[in-house]
Amino acid sequence: MDELRVNLADRGYPIVIGPGLIRQEALLKRGLGSGIAAVVTSDRIAPLYLKTVTDTLARGGAQVLEIVVPDGEQAKNWETLNLVYDALLANRCDRKTTIVALGGGVIGDLAGFAAATYQRGVPFIQVPTTLLALVDSSVGGKTAINHPLGKNMIGAFYQPQLVLADTDTLSTLPDREYRSGLGEVVKYGFIYDYAFLEWLEANMDALLARDPAALTHAIRRSCEIKAGIVAQDERETGIRAWLNLGHTFGHAIETGLGYGEWLHGEAVAAGMVAAAELSRLQGNLSVADVARVRRLIKRAGLPTVSPDLGQARYFDLMRIDKKAEGGAIRYVLLKRLGEAYVAPVPDAQVAPALAAAVSN
Amino acid sequence: MDELRVNLADRGYPIVIGPGLIRQEALLKRGLGSGIAAVVTSDRIAPLYLKTVTDTLARGGAQVLEIVVPDGEQAKNWETLNLVYDALLANRCDRKTTIVALGGGVIGDLAGFAAATYQRGVPFIQVPTTLLALVDSSVGGKTAINHPLGKNMIGAFYQPQLVLADTDTLSTLPDREYRSGLGEVVKYGFIYDYAFLEWLEANMDALLARDPAALTHAIRRSCEIKAGIVAQDERETGIRAWLNLGHTFGHAIETGLGYGEWLHGEAVAAGMVAAAELSRLQGNLSVADVARVRRLIKRAGLPTVSPDLGQARYFDLMRIDKKAEGGAIRYVLLKRLGEAYVAPVPDAQVAPALAAAVSN
Repeated sequence: MDELRVNLADRGYPIVIGPGLIRQEALLKRGLGSGIAAVVTSDRIAPLYLKTVTDTLARGGAQVLEIVVPDGEQAKNWETLNLVYDALLANRCDRKTTIVALGGGVIGDLAGFAAATYQRGVPFIQVPTTLLALVDSSVGGKTAINHPLGKNMIGAFYQPQLVLADTDTLSTLPDREYRSGLGEVVKYGFIYDYAFLEWLEANMDALLARDPAALTHAIRRSCEIKAGIVAQDERETGIRAWLNLGHTFGHAIETGLGYGEWLHGEAVAAGMVAAAELSRLQGNLSVADVARVRRLIKRAGLPTVSPDLGQARYFDLMRIDKKAEGGAIRYVLLKRLGEAYVAPVPDAQVAPALAAAVSN
Repeated sequence: MDELRVNLADRGYPIVIGPGLIRQEALLKRGLGSGIAAVVTSDRIAPLYLKTVTDTLARGGAQVLEIVVPDGEQAKNWETLNLVYDALLANRCDRKTTIVALGGGVIGDLAGFAAATYQRGVPFIQVPTTLLALVDSSVGGKTAINHPLGKNMIGAFYQPQLVLADTDTLSTLPDREYRSGLGEVVKYGFIYDYAFLEWLEANMDALLARDPAALTHAIRRSCEIKAGIVAQDERETGIRAWLNLGHTFGHAIETGLGYGEWLHGEAVAAGMVAAAELSRLQGNLSVADVARVRRLIKRAGLPTVSPDLGQARYFDLMRIDKKAEGGAIRYVLLKRLGEAYVAPVPDAQVAPALAAAVSN
C-alpha cells in the first residue's frame, strides 16, 4: 500500500494506492464525516462493488445510503445529477453527509459536483474503479457535468477528503476501458517526464497484460505527477493546463460524435496525435518525435486517427473549449517529448495538423 | 460614497455604497475581467436599469451580453439557471467572462451560482437593486437555487469581485419589497448590535419614509455587520449561522406556502417572532423582550404571525433545513436582544413556541 499527498494551500488530502483497499474500514473512515455516507455509483458498477463498499462502511459504523444512477458519459448531465440531489433530500441528508463516489471518471465528476453543490458543499471521497479515474480524474478536484453545447461546461473545483485507489477493481475493467485509461498514463510521459515515457515504451506489453508490478508503478507515477501539478496550480491558471494535452481536439471528438461514442481516453489519444502534429508544424517536435507519439498510442491499442468531422465543425467545437480566451483557441502543445506548453494558434496554422490527424 | 471591505483569508472585496453608482464606469471596471460582461437580470428589472448598466459597461470599453430571465423566487430553479448557461455558451463566453448580477436576492443567488459553476467558476459583480439584496444577500458569497424539496438546497460559497450598492435603485422598489428588506435590517439589531436596535426603534418612521440619511446609515451598518461576520466565518461553521435568525421557520413558511407567496423578508420576519418566542421558552428573553421584537417588526409593516401550516408540516419542512444535523433541528435563538446563539431544540419544546407564533 502506497500513500501520496496532494498538497494544497488550504487543505491537502491523501491518495492511497494498493489492492483490497475497499475492504478496509479503517481506511474509508479516514475520509468520513459524522453524518450519513451516501455512496453514489452507476448501475454497471453497483453489482460489482457496491455491497463490498457499503459492508465496509457499515463495519466502520456509518449509516449508509445507496444512490445508483445510469452509467456512461451520456448520463453525466443535469437529469442524473438531480437524481442524486433527490435521493439526498428525500433521505434528509444534512451538511455532515459524506458522498462516496464509487466508479469511473463519470461518477467521480458527477458525484463530486453533487458534493460541491449540495447544501453549498459536503465532504466527499473518491473511490475510482477505472484506470482512467485512478490515474487522472479522481485526483485534483475537478468536478463537472456536461452541457449539450460542451463537455464539462458546468462544474466546480472541489477537493475530496481522500482518494482510495483500489487496484483490485481494475480486474473487472473491460479491455477497451482499460486501454482508454492508458491514454492518460502515456500523456504524463509526453507532457512532463521523459524518463517515464521511456519506461512506458519499455513496459507497454506488461501494462497491456495488466502485470501488477508494472501497473502499480504506472499508477503511482501518474498520480505523483498529477498531484505535483495540481499542488502548483489548483485552479488551472498555469501549468495545470498541460494535463489537457490532446483534450481540446479530444473534447471536440467526443462532443462531435455524441457523448459516449468514443471513450474519453480514446478521444484524447487521437487528440494527442493531432497535438503532436501541430507541435511539429509549430517547429517543436521532429517527424521522428511525432512517429514515437503515434507508435506508443497505437501500441496501447488506442486510435491515432481522428474522425473526419470536417474542419469547420472541429473549429466550431474547439472554440467553445474552456481554455479558449477571447475567441483565439489555445492548445496544449509539446515543446519536446517530456515537456508541454500552452499557446494560442490561428486556425490557418491548425488546419494542416487537423488534416494530418484525420488522414494518417 | 462609502466603501467597506469584506476581509477573507484568500481574497477580500469591496462593497461600495451610495447614489448613482451604476452610472460610473470607473467603478464597474474595478470588478471586470478581460472578457465579455454578461449582465444577468430579470424581466422586471431590465426595463428599469439594464440600459443604464450596459451603457456604463460599454463606456468602460466592455463587450456586453444581456441575459434576461423570468422574475421571482419561483424562477430561482434549474430551468432558469440553464437559460443563463445556454446564453453564455451560445455566445461563446469563456473563463474571462464576468457575470454582472443586476437585481434582487433571487438574481444575485442565481447569477452568483451560475458564476460559481460556469466553466468551474468565472468572476462576478453584485449590483443589488432591492433593499434586501443591498443589506444581505449581495454580501458574503452565498449563492444557490431552490429545489422542489427545499429552499437554497443547491448552491456554493462563491465570493464576488465587487458589490456595487447603488441606493438610487431603491426609488423604484415597491413598498412591499422595501419592507421585506427592512426585515433583514432589524435582524442585525436583534442578533448583533443592541445600539443599532435602539437606533432602529428611534428611526423606523424615517426608514419607512425612505429618508436618504436614515437609509444610508441603515444600509452601511447592516453591510458592516454582515461583512464582519462573514470575515470571521466564511463557510458558516460558527457565528455566520446567526445571520439565519428566523430563517429556519421562515424557509418552512416559504416552502410550505409555495415559493413567492410570501416574500423572503416577510417569512423571516414572522420567523423571527417565532424564534423570539422560542428564546423566551428556553429561558433567555423576557416577555417584554419578545413584545419589543414583535413591535419593531410590526412597525416595519411586516407580518408577526406565522401561517398555520400545521405543526407536523412545520417540523417536516424544518428538518430539511441546512442547519439540521443528524435529525435534530438546530435553531438560531436570542441570548438577549443584540446577541444570538445556535442550539438544537427538541420538537416538544418547539411546539409551544410554534403554537404562539401562529396564533398571536
